[in-house]
Amino acid sequence: MEKGRYNKISDVAGVLVGHRTVEEGDVHTGVTVILPRPQIFRHKCPAAVHVINGFGKTSGLLQIEEMGVLESPIALTNTLSVGVVQQALVRHMLAENKEIGTLTGTVNVVVGECNDSYLNDIRACRVQEVDVFSAIADARADFALGSVGAGRGMSCFEMKGGIGSASRIIPIGNERYTLGALVLTNFGRKEDFLKGGSAFLPAENSAPEQGSILMILASDLPLSSRQLKRLCRRTPAALARVGSWLGNGSGDIAIAFSTGNEVSHFSSAAIQTMHVLNENYIDLAFRAAIEACEEAILSSLHASETLIGKDGHVRYSLKDTLAQMKKSNENT
Amino acid sequence: MEKGRYNKISDVAGVLVGHRTVEEGDVHTGVTVILPRPQIFRHKCPAAVHVINGFGKTSGLLQIEEMGVLESPIALTNTLSVGVVQQALVRHMLAENKEIGTLTGTVNVVVGECNDSYLNDIRACRVQEVDVFSAIADARADFALGSVGAGRGMSCFEMKGGIGSASRIIPIGNERYTLGALVLTNFGRKEDFLKGGSAFLPAENSAPEQGSILMILASDLPLSSRQLKRLCRRTPAALARVGSWLGNGSGDIAIAFSTGNEVSHFSSAAIQTMHVLNENYIDLAFRAAIEACEEAILSSLHASETLIGKDGHVRYSLKDTLAQMKKSNENT
Amino acid sequence: MEKGRYNKISDVAGVLVGHRTVEEGDVHTGVTVILPRPQIFRHKCPAAVHVINGFGKTSGLLQIEEMGVLESPIALTNTLSVGVVQQALVRHMLAENKEIGTLTGTVNVVVGECNDSYLNDIRACRVQEVDVFSAIADARADFALGSVGAGRGMSCFEMKGGIGSASRIIPIGNERYTLGALVLTNFGRKEDFLKGGSAFLPAENSAPEQGSILMILASDLPLSSRQLKRLCRRTPAALARVGSWLGNGSGDIAIAFSTGNEVSHFSSAAIQTMHVLNENYIDLAFRAAIEACEEAILSSLHASETLIGKDGHVRYSLKDTLAQMKKSNENT
Amino acid sequence: MEKGRYNKISDVAGVLVGHRTVEEGDVHTGVTVILPRPQIFRHKCPAAVHVINGFGKTSGLLQIEEMGVLESPIALTNTLSVGVVQQALVRHMLAENKEIGTLTGTVNVVVGECNDSYLNDIRACRVQEVDVFSAIADARADFALGSVGAGRGMSCFEMKGGIGSASRIIPIGNERYTLGALVLTNFGRKEDFLKGGSAFLPAENSAPEQGSILMILASDLPLSSRQLKRLCRRTPAALARVGSWLGNGSGDIAIAFSTGNEVSHFSSAAIQTMHVLNENYIDLAFRAAIEACEEAILSSLHASETLIGKDGHVRYSLKDTLAQMKKSNENT
Repeated sequence: MEKGRYNKISDVAGVLVGHRTVEEGDVHTGVTVILPRPQIFRHKCPAAVHVINGFGKTSGLLQIEEMGVLESPIALTNTLSVGVVQQALVRHMLAENKEIGTLTGTVNVVVGECNDSYLNDIRACRVQEVDVFSAIADARADFALGSVGAGRGMSCFEMKGGIGSASRIIPIGNERYTLGALVLTNFGRKEDFLKGGSAFLPAENSAPEQGSILMILASDLPLSSRQLKRLCRRTPAALARVGSWLGNGSGDIAIAFSTGNEVSHFSSAAIQTMHVLNENYIDLAFRAAIEACEEAILSSLHASETLIGKDGHVRYSLKDTLAQMKKSNENT
Repeated sequence: MEKGRYNKISDVAGVLVGHRTVEEGDVHTGVTVILPRPQIFRHKCPAAVHVINGFGKTSGLLQIEEMGVLESPIALTNTLSVGVVQQALVRHMLAENKEIGTLTGTVNVVVGECNDSYLNDIRACRVQEVDVFSAIADARADFALGSVGAGRGMSCFEMKGGIGSASRIIPIGNERYTLGALVLTNFGRKEDFLKGGSAFLPAENSAPEQGSILMILASDLPLSSRQLKRLCRRTPAALARVGSWLGNGSGDIAIAFSTGNEVSHFSSAAIQTMHVLNENYIDLAFRAAIEACEEAILSSLHASETLIGKDGHVRYSLKDTLAQMKKSNENT
Repeated sequence: MEKGRYNKISDVAGVLVGHRTVEEGDVHTGVTVILPRPQIFRHKCPAAVHVINGFGKTSGLLQIEEMGVLESPIALTNTLSVGVVQQALVRHMLAENKEIGTLTGTVNVVVGECNDSYLNDIRACRVQEVDVFSAIADARADFALGSVGAGRGMSCFEMKGGIGSASRIIPIGNERYTLGALVLTNFGRKEDFLKGGSAFLPAENSAPEQGSILMILASDLPLSSRQLKRLCRRTPAALARVGSWLGNGSGDIAIAFSTGNEVSHFSSAAIQTMHVLNENYIDLAFRAAIEACEEAILSSLHASETLIGKDGHVRYSLKDTLAQMKKSNENT
Repeated sequence: MEKGRYNKISDVAGVLVGHRTVEEGDVHTGVTVILPRPQIFRHKCPAAVHVINGFGKTSGLLQIEEMGVLESPIALTNTLSVGVVQQALVRHMLAENKEIGTLTGTVNVVVGECNDSYLNDIRACRVQEVDVFSAIADARADFALGSVGAGRGMSCFEMKGGIGSASRIIPIGNERYTLGALVLTNFGRKEDFLKGGSAFLPAENSAPEQGSILMILASDLPLSSRQLKRLCRRTPAALARVGSWLGNGSGDIAIAFSTGNEVSHFSSAAIQTMHVLNENYIDLAFRAAIEACEEAILSSLHASETLIGKDGHVRYSLKDTLAQMKKSNENT
């Protein structure tokens, strides 16, 4: 399938992404935010989640499940910083919406996480509320991939992982819709990595997985929350295609939202009109979701540089890993 | 069914509860913590959750659902303070378990919430991490009920609600097991309140519900996470028995754990032994759960005093409401 | 809330109900069918289900959950006849839709059940496919309640239960929508029965529950499948209000559909328009659902006559139970 | 991982499989039964299900979800014969257990299905109850694979599919446990088929998927129903590894049971002992489940012969497909 302009989630019009990398001594971590659309609290997006493996601490999923809408940015960070990032997102929403907690109810914010403790001194809890505000201020369409923001300390297939993204064009009738994926990759063992369907990297003497992957899907296709949930439920196929075995200690979560519909917070009309995709066309969206997630995972590997982290722990980039392998093959 | 010694959740041996009330100007809020057992990270409890209505921001439920265990205290607070309370719980767990984030993985903490913005200036986000530590330090078996801790600013049936608790003895064979409930009540409209099955309070000109209820069930009955989930799924009956209509804007969550089994974090035995209740006896536990939750809700009303909160908003206690009604009846 | 014309589920325009009672020696059972709208396979209704307690054998729920639509009549019968009734519904759908299994895919039919073995020789498996066709042929708006059709052998609070129904008018803006409930009641112990909130019947020396309740909700309100699921999730409140403790051995299932939207099987338009209720108005529909289910349960008791069934087992009607109680009180 | 003796699900001690192929004119279909252990109603197995895509009509899953046990054989057949097969399984259970429906409650039977209408005249509904009894009578450890029983009319990647099976040995400590998979394959488009990670077959001008796959996992590892559900949730990885895109119209269901624990129907002990796997070892079981399912799918292709079915529709075997491709390559 055809790719979008940037081949990123921001190919879906209105979606922006910002990073704040937090780097200091043994601290190698950060925050990444996805802004779904301007004034998201007032103009909510239909949304859904799917928990592939729930060994994770993502917050804010309950209300998406119940109400079928996203009403805040989505922030990503390390596992032990979810609280502070959530609090910062709340403060951001309060500042942007004076009516929350006075004229209207509260707000549901969403924070996803992976455990970067191999490279990052996660016990330091160094992420601050101000880092979230910086990430929001940094939001743009042409954002960086790899070891930035929340991806700073992440590992993928025991190489350097982080933030990845990709997009696909979905032609339906005379229209061209876009579906984009952004992933935070932190899973997998080296020997299991598949590229073009084949394993080719040597095994490491590796610990059991304590990783995770967060997959965010966005589309301007008009989809209902039920349909978005079906998209999310296709994402394990992307994981499997790159070699994941869906390990016990991994928190694997997919979140999807559609900018093709709007649920207005302050609308007073009793009956509202929504546009939804004819289910007979949804296979195209399924395929786009799987393809985009698969490529996004690979892009997180391609875009990352080798990092020497906490206690001298090293994660080589995919590029350096391949170079080493080539060299080692030549020597034998 | 017979009640326990304190008629509180702490009748389950090892369960302690602590409060920290935060009171300052228009701020009337706080934190309540439930400590399930000593060294809970190392000695996890089988646990389960059920979302009755997911218009809520409780965090930490994903991993309970996946792994079937509770590995941290449960904290309760107001909706917009979940982040800071979660961060504090994480810090508490880090301090108590040096191996988290170094020799072992991370930790899943649980924070429940209700929206106390009618009485509390919730936008002030005044709860601090230190308030959580104070609540933990305050933990005891004979804890206070009513407008304390997280219950400080809560409303129930448009009267003063807050923290309630009750317990039941479950006789099985020659053994006597205990089941306890703790609730944070913040739901309902005045005219819907049922006592002994009848409505008797006059209607208020009330806004739609933006409330919530958190229900925590504890028992020393050896139950599996599946069985605990079944207990949780009985709690809507307690809500209905006091008059709830399970409104749209309410986040109604039940969490249950059993101290009758232990899942050891560091155990190396490949095959482990668990004790579980014969399902043919479980109706007794269902009834105990419904009775305890129903009485706990009522106790939150009985134990609370009238409070004048933010912007002069008043919630009368049940006692004062009944006195007013009596007086008003005498005058007519 | 105001009631509809018949105070039955058929107050929702287009909904019809038919019965076939099967009575022969120790056999006291039958079939009831709910027809949601004409040509339901081609003009599907948004639909949802909620499993309150899954000790049951209802079939056809998977696809409703996934696709969010109902595409067949719903049939009710006894637990051990689900298979034959399902096969008959399939044959009915094949006869009505020549394209199933040739030009298009297959069809998902829905069969609910309760265990009537106290009054009915359930092992005889006496329901035949032809009984289903008879029930369909009998479909009408002004259908009978009580010990008819699938309700023939059912018990409720250890009295004679069966088919009940009720409806409510939901005024929204200038429109009047209708919500109707049909229940098949087969649960509860005598001493737990509440009327007007109070228990008043003496205890029987009763066996543990092996009952069930099926609750079907229909409305012409335009609701999405997500919203219909939220309606279903309110039905435990109706059960609790009449005295249920949601016992272990009971299969308690709610199914809801809306005739206010149509999902066309053969539509080729890629993007379709749906109407959905503004969620801020949904509390009215919640209340209508709870009220209608509560009254439908009571109507199943009021409409049933005393029945002497299998092995001389007797279930007295509510009327006869009250008369006996009155007499017994006079004698003492 | 090492394979079991037969490399079939029956390598799990006690598990037997039987087939009944129904072949007559345009009818090419059948029934396959999996017997989990002798006297399964009295000696239930912990069990779980996972719905990958719910466009399916499998019955009997509700109660497995609620009670966490399997209490009947599992039967597989075509989509429109689920009813009659369910009724037959009920009769089989009634014959084997005189107490069902008299001294004890009813029984939950499980029937899975795929839509074989491309090769089979599915509208004929030719499967009879007696065919189920024949399949049960045929049960054995060394059962046939391919186009037999329920697999008779099934298609996989637009080639001839059907019944597949495989097994893996899981060494834990000094013990060797076995995990086996049985699949009924009926999904996929030719061009998507992956072998060793690569697509190599030419595209067909194919219709959208209306397929399904049923995956049955059995193990003598002592697993709880929660753990078995986690196994089921790994099976999408097996589908993805052979090339599935998890299409809209496919009913993809996984069911798992463990013979390593027993839940006794008539036990009167209030507290029971279960053995469960230490979750830190479960990655091995996950990998075994994915490997066994993947190989089972491939075995359904390898074991099937080319079939000319309804209306002259042909599905070539994988072997014949490869031979054609080789020939066609030589000619060009």
